[in-house]
Parts: sequence; C-alpha cells; structure tokens
Amino acid sequence: MRTSSMLEQLMEALRCLPGVGPKSAQRMAFHLLQRNRKGGLQLAEALSQAMTEIGHCDQCRTFTEQDTCHVCTNPKRQANGQICVVETPADIAAIEATGQYSGRYFVLMGHLSPLDGIGPSDIGLDLLDYRLSIGDVEEVILATNPTVEGEATAHYIAQLCKAHGVNASRIAHGVPMGGELELVDGTTLSHSLLGRQKL
Amino acid sequence: MRTSSMLEQLMEALRCLPGVGPKSAQRMAFHLLQRNRKGGLQLAEALSQAMTEIGHCDQCRTFTEQDTCHVCTNPKRQANGQICVVETPADIAAIEATGQYSGRYFVLMGHLSPLDGIGPSDIGLDLLDYRLSIGDVEEVILATNPTVEGEATAHYIAQLCKAHGVNASRIAHGVPMGGELELVDGTTLSHSLLGRQKL
Ligand SMILES: [Zn+2]
Ligand SMILES: [Zn+2]
Repeated sequence: MRTSSMLEQLMEALRCLPGVGPKSAQRMAFHLLQRNRKGGLQLAEALSQAMTEIGHCDQCRTFTEQDTCHVCTNPKRQANGQICVVETPADIAAIEATGQYSGRYFVLMGHLSPLDGIGPSDIGLDLLDYRLSIGDVEEVILATNPTVEGEATAHYIAQLCKAHGVNASRIAHGVPMGGELELVDGTTLSHSLLGRQKL
Repeated sequence: MRTSSMLEQLMEALRCLPGVGPKSAQRMAFHLLQRNRKGGLQLAEALSQAMTEIGHCDQCRTFTEQDTCHVCTNPKRQANGQICVVETPADIAAIEATGQYSGRYFVLMGHLSPLDGIGPSDIGLDLLDYRLSIGDVEEVILATNPTVEGEATAHYIAQLCKAHGVNASRIAHGVPMGGELELVDGTTLSHSLLGRQKL
C-alpha cells in the first residue's frame, strides 16, 4: 500500500552491489533521481546487456560477450608461447596494467578447494589440459594467489604441465617494492629470504 | 575493436553512482557477473522503472510514482494541521525514522540561492503559497538545513506563513544529544546558548 514502493524497490535492488548498505543505497537512489536520470537509465541498459550477454571465452575462460576474447584472438599474443594462469578476470586487469606481459591467459574463476567440492574440472583444468596437449604452449606462468588454496592449485597445475612436458613457473613473492621491511609480515619475509637471488 | 567492450561499458556506467570510482566499479561488475547475475538484472529493471516512472507528489513534491504520495493521501496525516518543510526527500526519511512526527511534509528539492539563480518558484514556493491559502494548515515547521542558505530559506517561508496568518516554527539547533560539549563547534555552541530554555 506504500506509494513509494518503486523507490523502495530501487534501494533494495542497489544493495546487490558489494559494499552498498541501506544508507548508501538511499544516497545513490536520491542522487540518480534528483541529478542523473540519464545516467541511471544508461546503467540499467549496460547492466541488462552485460548480465544476459557476457559469457566466458572458449580459450581462456575470462569474461567476454564474444566466443573468444580479444586477447586470445590477438595473433601477437598467440605467437608468444606463454600462458599466465590467474584466479579471476580482475587479476588479468592488474597484470595488463603493468604492461610487462604479452602472452595469453587462463582464468580459473576460483581455485581448487576440495572441502567446498571444487575440483579440477570446476576450475576449467580439463580445458587447460586440452590446450597444453595442442603443443603451442612453451611456458605456463602460475599467478594464482599466495594463499594455501592458491599455492595448492599452482602445485596441481605444475604437475599437469610436467605431464605435458611444458615448463611451469611461479611468479615471485616477497617484500613489496617500496614497502618497508619492518612492516612486512613474517611469512612474507621468510618467503623472501628463502627465495633470495644471487647478485 | 576490444572484445571486452560490454564489460567496459558496464564499469563506466556504474560510475554514475555517487562514491563509485574505477576500482569499485570494476569490483561491482565482476561481483555481479561472477556471483549475482539475477541481482544485476533486478537492479537493471528497478533502475529503468524508477528513472522513467518516479515523479513528484503534486501536494508535497517528494518522489513518488503516483500523482499524490502515500503521506499526502493518508487521512490521519491530513487531519494533523502541520506541514514540515524540508530540503530533500532524504530529510523526510530521517524525520519519519524518529517516529515523532505525524503531519505532512513539503519538499523544496533544494534551497533559495539567488547567486545560482534559484528563486522561490524553483523550490516550489508557489505551490506552498497555494497550500497555505486553502486554510487547512495550522503550523509550518521549518526543518531546512542549518546553513546560510537553509536559514535564509526558512526566513523567507516564515514571512510567507505570516502573510497567510499561519504559525511558523523552526526546529531546534544546538549541542547534539549524547555529544560532548568540548567537541561541538563554536557556532553550534553559541546557538545553543542563545536558544537556552528555562527549567
Ligand atoms: Zn580468451
Ligand atoms: Zn506528498
């Protein structure tokens, strides 16, 4: 019976966004209604398109509305024999932002987690297995997160590479550049000592 | 030529929300795509409905998709002869949350600001003038913000009430309840001294 139901529905719907509670949802709804209805309509359109049309790349599993993503279809990326394995599409964005990598990717969309019932095929390792079998991959760079699950996943994929005779490497972990030694946690520091390189 | 254009459009569109920068937009987009496409579609629908169908109440100017809002059409609210004047619909939400007020509202959707060319008719004072002329209003409670513009607007409306022989009152300003005196700014403290009440 409330006349404001459409506004309440909007506030409720905005809360599906991560980090948005009742207060921010209200602020967002009023902001759009008062100042930017055009922006609100564009957001509605972009959301509805993205949610229905974006799927996964058939080569690397990242998000794309095409069958194959623009990285996988890039001939220069194909000529480079490297594949960088990451947990999420956001990790690709971070690596691309460095401008230091020109190979292809493979997105697990998660990591191995036996306790949650997430096994190799749930993170696309059957597809990765197939890609390694084709013979155009020279090196697999394992860039999963430095967590227990990420390490275990990297280890599992390294075994897979070994079975295919493909080199596997793990990105370096240690004291962040520009970070202060005394502020780094003990595990990272131990890791950085063990992983020291000769000068 | 980028295959990820639909994702980029979504991230760009999300930035129309207040407080959402490139990083949060990316986090929101990935979150919806990975975990809550249904929520994303519901948000698209709620946004598109709200942006096209929500207008202003013909009595109090608050947001509603009806001609007249649920507060203005409530007979109990009408029987109460009070009208509380606020700057934004968010202020109504704050006052309603106290549970202490059972009259009607009038939303200015801003305040007088001659330098920005915002005069009486831009904040609906012609409509308020008409409502005061009908004769069913006994008291106008001025709850505009305690800013220079809010005070000037309250003063202007008080004159309007006087012309119609309607009582006008201003909500009390002073030290917030539960606040510590030493943390309150000087203007507020002066105001609270001048506005002292006999015990
Ligand atoms: Zn791809
Ligand atoms: Zn109303």
